[in-house]
Amino acid sequence: MNTSVTLVEVGPRDGFQSVGPFIPTEKKLHFLTQLDACGLHDIEIGSFVSQKALPQLADTPTLLELARDIPRLRPRVLVPTLQQGRRALAADAPCLAFVLSVSEAHNRSNVRRTPEASASEYVALATSLPDDKEMRLNIGTAFDCPFEGRVQVDDVVRLLEPLISALPRAEFCLCDTTGRADPKQVSDLFKAVGESFGRDLRWAFHAHDTYGLGAANVYAAFLQGVRVFDASIAGLGGCPFAPGATGNVATEDLIYMFEKMGVSTGCDLDRMVALAGEAALLPGAQSGGRARQAITARYAAELNSSST
Amino acid sequence: MNTSVTLVEVGPRDGFQSVGPFIPTEKKLHFLTQLDACGLHDIEIGSFVSQKALPQLADTPTLLELARDIPRLRPRVLVPTLQQGRRALAADAPCLAFVLSVSEAHNRSNVRRTPEASASEYVALATSLPDDKEMRLNIGTAFDCPFEGRVQVDDVVRLLEPLISALPRAEFCLCDTTGRADPKQVSDLFKAVGESFGRDLRWAFHAHDTYGLGAANVYAAFLQGVRVFDASIAGLGGCPFAPGATGNVATEDLIYMFEKMGVSTGCDLDRMVALAGEAALLPGAQSGGRARQAITARYAAELNSSST
Repeated sequence: MNTSVTLVEVGPRDGFQSVGPFIPTEKKLHFLTQLDACGLHDIEIGSFVSQKALPQLADTPTLLELARDIPRLRPRVLVPTLQQGRRALAADAPCLAFVLSVSEAHNRSNVRRTPEASASEYVALATSLPDDKEMRLNIGTAFDCPFEGRVQVDDVVRLLEPLISALPRAEFCLCDTTGRADPKQVSDLFKAVGESFGRDLRWAFHAHDTYGLGAANVYAAFLQGVRVFDASIAGLGGCPFAPGATGNVATEDLIYMFEKMGVSTGCDLDRMVALAGEAALLPGAQSGGRARQAITARYAAELNSSST
Repeated sequence: MNTSVTLVEVGPRDGFQSVGPFIPTEKKLHFLTQLDACGLHDIEIGSFVSQKALPQLADTPTLLELARDIPRLRPRVLVPTLQQGRRALAADAPCLAFVLSVSEAHNRSNVRRTPEASASEYVALATSLPDDKEMRLNIGTAFDCPFEGRVQVDDVVRLLEPLISALPRAEFCLCDTTGRADPKQVSDLFKAVGESFGRDLRWAFHAHDTYGLGAANVYAAFLQGVRVFDASIAGLGGCPFAPGATGNVATEDLIYMFEKMGVSTGCDLDRMVALAGEAALLPGAQSGGRARQAITARYAAELNSSST
């Protein structure tokens, strides 16, 4: 197939932020180092947000500083506003991940602004972005909103238009915030944005596995030409709208799927499975995914049978 | 989309056979009745095999008799040999599910015969099948063998040729026995058999979710025109090659996916989720799937927030 994909590891941000007990900064650094060693060089390492809102991610600026010693790592930091974006740039963050939601209810709940207000802040940030900095735009609730239900394709296209014009070299990620997208919907939306704005833009997809469709939705996006996928080690990151349910699609599940398909991820699956086992044991972590459990069980069975 | 699919419920056979403690016959009948009430009318209710080999399914003949009182139910019974097939026909089973594997090592381990010997027995059974009886042919290890690894497309095509000629009106199911197939492999194999034998045959797919690719593989098969899918309530049925890992793709996950896609399954998801919760609690059961947990958690959260 001779194709490759980029997996963007979001566990240290999207995963860790759902973990209650504070994960010490040196433990976070350990995961960044090991994720990088597994072949995951694009990592969302944290957020620039108010420390009061997300105490778990209060050490992001420190972590950004420490991450400079990991040579191949390209750290990303999430920023929800223009002000936080400027703060991240002042801290010399190489890549900003700006987040805004299509649905008004979700955007208000997330960042206390209308989507239009967030869009204006993004445009201000994007049009003044230094040439040596990179931008990822995360479009939340691109498929479904926990408050408003299914989101229409036209609403996503309309919201995207000025945002893409502002900085066409950015990475544009459609996020299935609730995990309620289905493969047909994913296929339809990426087809529509590809036709509206061009398939040569850098499209990305952020899948959740809440209803078991994470890998199916990623495959549907892949068939539409998407080559950048967010994923979280051990599937860390619960679902705030269904407490007790799992959240992000697991990085190791996507490595397994793509490598089996002959699509290169550049990642070492065995090493990643071991590291995911460690992440799943973090106090307060809610883990998901399937490949980790299956591969670990198979190794245990083989070890067992070879020792008798 | 105006499309529909048939979900074949295999939990009472493939799922229950992996449960250690004997499930009383009246409990099994309860599940058959309730599955039928959920809209699952095609159910593999058990196996005609030696009682010594599978004590859990020793009551299949009794169950077949009792199942006649469930009006819409179309029971299927698994048969691994010509002799057991004749026994099932003598018991007036309306639909036989014959199983044989592409890989010699797996077929020998499963039924102590070469694939060629099993194929001859199938042909003898199929060519003498009464007109009022139906046949499903399960091709095990069509993608991957626990002993021999990846299975080649040509080997599947070569094995299928005389089997399809013997009874073209049968249902032909390609089984991912180990759960190690990926969406591209599923897509390629169904494309190949469709081109070799015709897309108007009744093709079916039996997916496992061991590595988290159950729904993705089902979606890939669906895109190739497959409209019949095996699935197991609550994902019952572990993986004998990776003890501790989950097995069959969960019926409720497929109902969720297809209904979201606008593809009719004829099934009542909410009712199925409740029944799957009951199945997951069977003593000795190993459950899987995602939709059950997510939907149950969401309802609990809604109930919680509405009571405050």
